[in-house]
Amino acid sequence: MPRVAILGTGLIGGSIGLRLKAARPELEVVGFDSFREHSQAAERGKAIDRVAHSPREAVTGAGLVIFAAPILAIRDLMQEVAPALEPGVIATDTGSTKAEVMRWARELLPAEASFVGGHPMAGKTEAGPSAAEATLFEGARWAIVPSSEAAEDAVDVVTGLALAMGARPMFLDAEEHDAYVAAISHLPLMVATALFRLTRDSEAWPELSMLAAGGFRDTSRLAGTDPAMAHDIAVTNRTQLIHWIERYIETLRSLQRQVADVEGEQELFRVFAQTNLEHGAFMSGAIGRKEIDEAHWSAVPETSLMDLLLGGTMAERAREMTRRSEERLAEAERRAKAGGRG
Amino acid sequence: MPRVAILGTGLIGGSIGLRLKAARPELEVVGFDSFREHSQAAERGKAIDRVAHSPREAVTGAGLVIFAAPILAIRDLMQEVAPALEPGVIATDTGSTKAEVMRWARELLPAEASFVGGHPMAGKTEAGPSAAEATLFEGARWAIVPSSEAAEDAVDVVTGLALAMGARPMFLDAEEHDAYVAAISHLPLMVATALFRLTRDSEAWPELSMLAAGGFRDTSRLAGTDPAMAHDIAVTNRTQLIHWIERYIETLRSLQRQVADVEGEQELFRVFAQTNLEHGAFMSGAIGRKEIDEAHWSAVPETSLMDLLLGGTMAERAREMTRRSEERLAEAERRAKAGGRG
Repeated sequence: MPRVAILGTGLIGGSIGLRLKAARPELEVVGFDSFREHSQAAERGKAIDRVAHSPREAVTGAGLVIFAAPILAIRDLMQEVAPALEPGVIATDTGSTKAEVMRWARELLPAEASFVGGHPMAGKTEAGPSAAEATLFEGARWAIVPSSEAAEDAVDVVTGLALAMGARPMFLDAEEHDAYVAAISHLPLMVATALFRLTRDSEAWPELSMLAAGGFRDTSRLAGTDPAMAHDIAVTNRTQLIHWIERYIETLRSLQRQVADVEGEQELFRVFAQTNLEHGAFMSGAIGRKEIDEAHWSAVPETSLMDLLLGGTMAERAREMTRRSEERLAEAERRAKAGGRG
Repeated sequence: MPRVAILGTGLIGGSIGLRLKAARPELEVVGFDSFREHSQAAERGKAIDRVAHSPREAVTGAGLVIFAAPILAIRDLMQEVAPALEPGVIATDTGSTKAEVMRWARELLPAEASFVGGHPMAGKTEAGPSAAEATLFEGARWAIVPSSEAAEDAVDVVTGLALAMGARPMFLDAEEHDAYVAAISHLPLMVATALFRLTRDSEAWPELSMLAAGGFRDTSRLAGTDPAMAHDIAVTNRTQLIHWIERYIETLRSLQRQVADVEGEQELFRVFAQTNLEHGAFMSGAIGRKEIDEAHWSAVPETSLMDLLLGGTMAERAREMTRRSEERLAEAERRAKAGGRG
């Protein structure tokens, strides 16, 4: 039976397992988590078929390996499982930063493994397998970062996985990915953390907390992010994050000056009015540049993951990989470049 | 029939009307809005019984007047309606800042009117009477700011109004109120506005908007705030807001330094872990100092608004006010001081 290994069966890994089992019950999904309760809960919740007792046991016989652990734990897991990976295995991850993960994959995984980075842009404040849902990724972006070494069919498999999750794939290179998510995902985490810390550390917190309404709750929601995730994001996307915090402080300074300018009340109104209009457009779904967006993923066959896992043996795939390696390398590079312009 | 006037029948005024009519259909609720479509929509939606053609027409014969307009418009409305207010009228407002509003009430309203400031800590991004809901204030805080001139029974009526809305009254003085809401409500508005402006103005916005997920949406939600409301908040709470933006920038700087410190990764983790724990406690309902909170409002009779409006005529109330004025003044001052310690 084709086997998928999920390393890390928390919110993200558990949700992937649930959706995978719902779509294709004939796949065997094996899960490992360093918190034994997490893998057991994932098994009870039918997100995985079987708990592995070690990362190596989980990847043995698996054609697809999904690293769904906190970012820094992915490095350790790669090191640990490398000797046990099947020849021709396809591997991906769900980490929130990509440059470091791609570097670890290059350094730690065997040459016969094809690694394609992944990052589902979905989540919620609750963590752990009990929060997992088969619909977590429905309609969400799934960033796909092909390595220059990855086989083309590996990119198709990971793209197929994202589509099977109900997500919308978007191809990016690692540096581009990390710069974008620093602004749109990691900066909001810092913004919310700073807002919560400032008010929570205030002597007036007893009164402030009583007066806190929906606006404060929404703006500070990300302060509830799992601390390991927040920490790993900060230390693996440090330069970009520092840059975006700096630009954010400049924006706040400019807004502060406009508030202070008693002569410029009309200009201040104009800023709020423009923000309100543009925010309304964004919330109504006006995003991206539609034509580029569509070109990115509309051509990817939705069945490629399943076809590859269900058809053919690993040995056949490994032989095929060797034969076509040069060809695929060129193709993957072209794809990475083309995808990178999204 | 006892009459209530609502000046400004948008989201807040409309929601007050809906709840008031549901609780006591025998009250006559008259509404005025400078956007005629707003008052007509409020009438169609049964939030008010009758559309007034001018603010003065609305307050004529009304025992309770509620100023539910954007803050700066409240000043104009006070000036406009002052000559038409009934002797002994009780007036309140729903503005997001209180020091300026209390000053206008002192300067513009006649001495026979009792003004008690109010601020329901509830709302949503959508504006206008079509967004109004009878349950908008359910469980929300309703800040009550008695003026030193207000009669004690006026404080009871406004407290009764808040309770009738399903809200939880909290007594504060005007300066205290403005300092607290600057931190817990107006700062989040600026935080969200700056986050949206920075990313929206970025050249990478097409890509950023495609990658934006729930975290960005929640953190930037307040960027959709009605621009008149945002502007009026900023210009009537300028000093406090500038102060809190400054403290927020300092907090961000400190977080930025911790992210940059490659030797301090453990300390960074500790910050995220503490934030996560304290945020979890806050979200589980750990707020304020419970004993103070309860003392604030548990003794207020829930029926006082209705009793006062349904019993007695305005003329009787005016005579009674004159007789007890000295006594009430002292009592109101005591209350304002005691309430102010919340």
